[in-house]
Amino acid sequence: MRAEIISTGDEIVSGSITDTNASWLAAELLDAGIVTGRISCTGDEAETLAAVIGEAAHRADLVLVTGGLGPTEDDRTARAAALAAQDRLGLNREALVFVETYFEKRKVTMPEINRKQAELPLTAGVVENLFGTAPGFSMVINQALFFFMPGVPMEMKKMFKNGVLPEINRRFKLDTRVLSRCFSLFGLPEAEVGTRLAGFRDQFPDMRLGFRADFPLIYVKFSCPGSRLSGPALEEEMERAGQWIASRLEKRIVSFLGLTMEEEVGRLLTACGATVAVAESCTGGLVADMLTDVAGSSDYFLLSAVTYANQAKIGVLGVYSKTIEKNGAVHEETARSMAEGARKAAGADYAIATSGVAGPGGGSEEKPVGMVCIGLAGPGFSRGKTCHFSFKERRMNKKIFAVKALELLRRELDAKK
Amino acid sequence: MRAEIISTGDEIVSGSITDTNASWLAAELLDAGIVTGRISCTGDEAETLAAVIGEAAHRADLVLVTGGLGPTEDDRTARAAALAAQDRLGLNREALVFVETYFEKRKVTMPEINRKQAELPLTAGVVENLFGTAPGFSMVINQALFFFMPGVPMEMKKMFKNGVLPEINRRFKLDTRVLSRCFSLFGLPEAEVGTRLAGFRDQFPDMRLGFRADFPLIYVKFSCPGSRLSGPALEEEMERAGQWIASRLEKRIVSFLGLTMEEEVGRLLTACGATVAVAESCTGGLVADMLTDVAGSSDYFLLSAVTYANQAKIGVLGVYSKTIEKNGAVHEETARSMAEGARKAAGADYAIATSGVAGPGGGSEEKPVGMVCIGLAGPGFSRGKTCHFSFKERRMNKKIFAVKALELLRRELDAKK
Repeated sequence: MRAEIISTGDEIVSGSITDTNASWLAAELLDAGIVTGRISCTGDEAETLAAVIGEAAHRADLVLVTGGLGPTEDDRTARAAALAAQDRLGLNREALVFVETYFEKRKVTMPEINRKQAELPLTAGVVENLFGTAPGFSMVINQALFFFMPGVPMEMKKMFKNGVLPEINRRFKLDTRVLSRCFSLFGLPEAEVGTRLAGFRDQFPDMRLGFRADFPLIYVKFSCPGSRLSGPALEEEMERAGQWIASRLEKRIVSFLGLTMEEEVGRLLTACGATVAVAESCTGGLVADMLTDVAGSSDYFLLSAVTYANQAKIGVLGVYSKTIEKNGAVHEETARSMAEGARKAAGADYAIATSGVAGPGGGSEEKPVGMVCIGLAGPGFSRGKTCHFSFKERRMNKKIFAVKALELLRRELDAKK
Repeated sequence: MRAEIISTGDEIVSGSITDTNASWLAAELLDAGIVTGRISCTGDEAETLAAVIGEAAHRADLVLVTGGLGPTEDDRTARAAALAAQDRLGLNREALVFVETYFEKRKVTMPEINRKQAELPLTAGVVENLFGTAPGFSMVINQALFFFMPGVPMEMKKMFKNGVLPEINRRFKLDTRVLSRCFSLFGLPEAEVGTRLAGFRDQFPDMRLGFRADFPLIYVKFSCPGSRLSGPALEEEMERAGQWIASRLEKRIVSFLGLTMEEEVGRLLTACGATVAVAESCTGGLVADMLTDVAGSSDYFLLSAVTYANQAKIGVLGVYSKTIEKNGAVHEETARSMAEGARKAAGADYAIATSGVAGPGGGSEEKPVGMVCIGLAGPGFSRGKTCHFSFKERRMNKKIFAVKALELLRRELDAKK
């Protein structure tokens, strides 16, 4: 079963918008057990699109096409499909009724221009659009089954779920559910992850292993598409593979469910019934921003004091001015004191604090760009730790400082389980 | 001049990530006057990638490829390029020195696995990577010039700007003196921007106009590639086009230099010699994170108190508990009071505050998801304002809340000029 996806539109090949339809469709297909071999994007020109359609028709069994079904002159997908199939365009009665009904329901006279949306290749069948004027259509070109859908993501997704996927399942009699799992990890370079897992293919020849880096986390995904195994035997093999991977990555694994760092910290805090406060200098609010990206975080996140100015560290967090005078703002002792202050100010169970040099300026020989001091405070303890990273870029440093601070909290919470 | 872009990686064709590299490159090429005809994405399999490379080599003059240059077993782009070019792989000395130097600088022994990154097609030339271990390379396949770059966006962008684009300009003798300008704007939907600027092509037939949305800002870029005009006449025409656009977008323009909202706010604060503090509830640290992404922001940014818990609003910001009891946390009066509290706590000239419902939960009929109250305080004044946005997604709401708050401050500072 070979599937391909085609996205059309000048706005995509000109870079005005990022095509999100293709990745959404690829993920949906994978969930249905279908691996996408290729994604192609091309502009609005009918001849080029016809060529792309024709090539895909020779390689694939299933092709999903999005875009170019609108009423305007630059919507030329139906014409391209007819060209590729050596078919002709004609008024499709069913499609016309569909477009007319769309306008009738809204008590609007159908503009003449929208009539064009019912001009489809003669061999095409209509696919209903629940949200817009453009009917979709499906047809067979060179034995490949094509589905043509609108480019507006909401219309396309609705059409895919309601009209296209059921038809794919019916025609291709799919029953293979792909089992896949994902681990997230922090603290190893991608190369090192690759080295540690190099023997995977020999051990598990039926499985796929993939890495995805979302700095500074790495996601390891393994799946079993079209395996000889099924049922409990397949589950067991997945379990064995998971353990094999876990034994090689050990403590670097953040979540066995592929959660982000902030999701995993939130999960652990919820499990402990604990709350957290943050004091941020060099991370400038990013730790708080990450924590509060998790829906429901208001249950455990109380406060972050983003104290860029020393006066704010002293006034809001109660850090002693002597501590800063003696050690400077970037120091383990200051970070520890900040964490204590945040914990106290918020009445939280735990607190983390960051103070460091994100760059590009502000570094010195003693305290270079990439240096961060992290404070951690909890019931009956507080401590500080210094880490060095080698990035020169401000945003990267902010990110890795923030995730490192969350990682220290995660390990603390994890150890309590 | 026919250009194509190829993105590789199982994570793209499986839908795990959306490929943003291709649209970024397409926009960059367009700025240089080069239209992209096709974008192709394929997985990690070397044979398929080699086929995609081979096909592009027959159609295009210039092909940009991203991804698959890492050290792990599933990074197979060099092999695919060699296959497509009927070339062989061999150790490239220059590339090896590059990889070794990368590790030396970080005082780390190069893992043996990274040696693979120096195995390139024999006819390839090395392109320097300023940020990562993977050297890029360029080679000619069937008269098309190929550039192979890493898939990590930051590494790729740096390499493109520094190593690839200058080489493209040199080889294709592009007129590098393309004049281009960019305005950033906030508060109009993309369709509305398009409608307002619809007459541009008639007025300025020699110019190109493009939009790029980076939610919630839109960037309008106009340029004059290969114009008949030059020198002062060209400058004058650019000026006229800029005024034409400005007259249609008016107060929605954030920066006539294409700055981000946080850069423009930073610029204005610096120009006024003023400082700022922030109090954040629903934006959860994002306002602070944005402000501190600007290098040198420590000159004007003093504090953000991310007060998720009401107790923190009362304790850290000195908001009266009565104010919250009477109005609730999401209220103009509470937001105004938060801004006043942050301004006072930090001793800042200005302060902004956010309190709203980011969703997906927590909304009510009276205070629905997408509602935000923004407080603004400055010398001798403070006020609150309520805005409603119609997004259902948490991250989108956090972003538009944060940018809206910064926009209110920007307008205040701008009016003082």
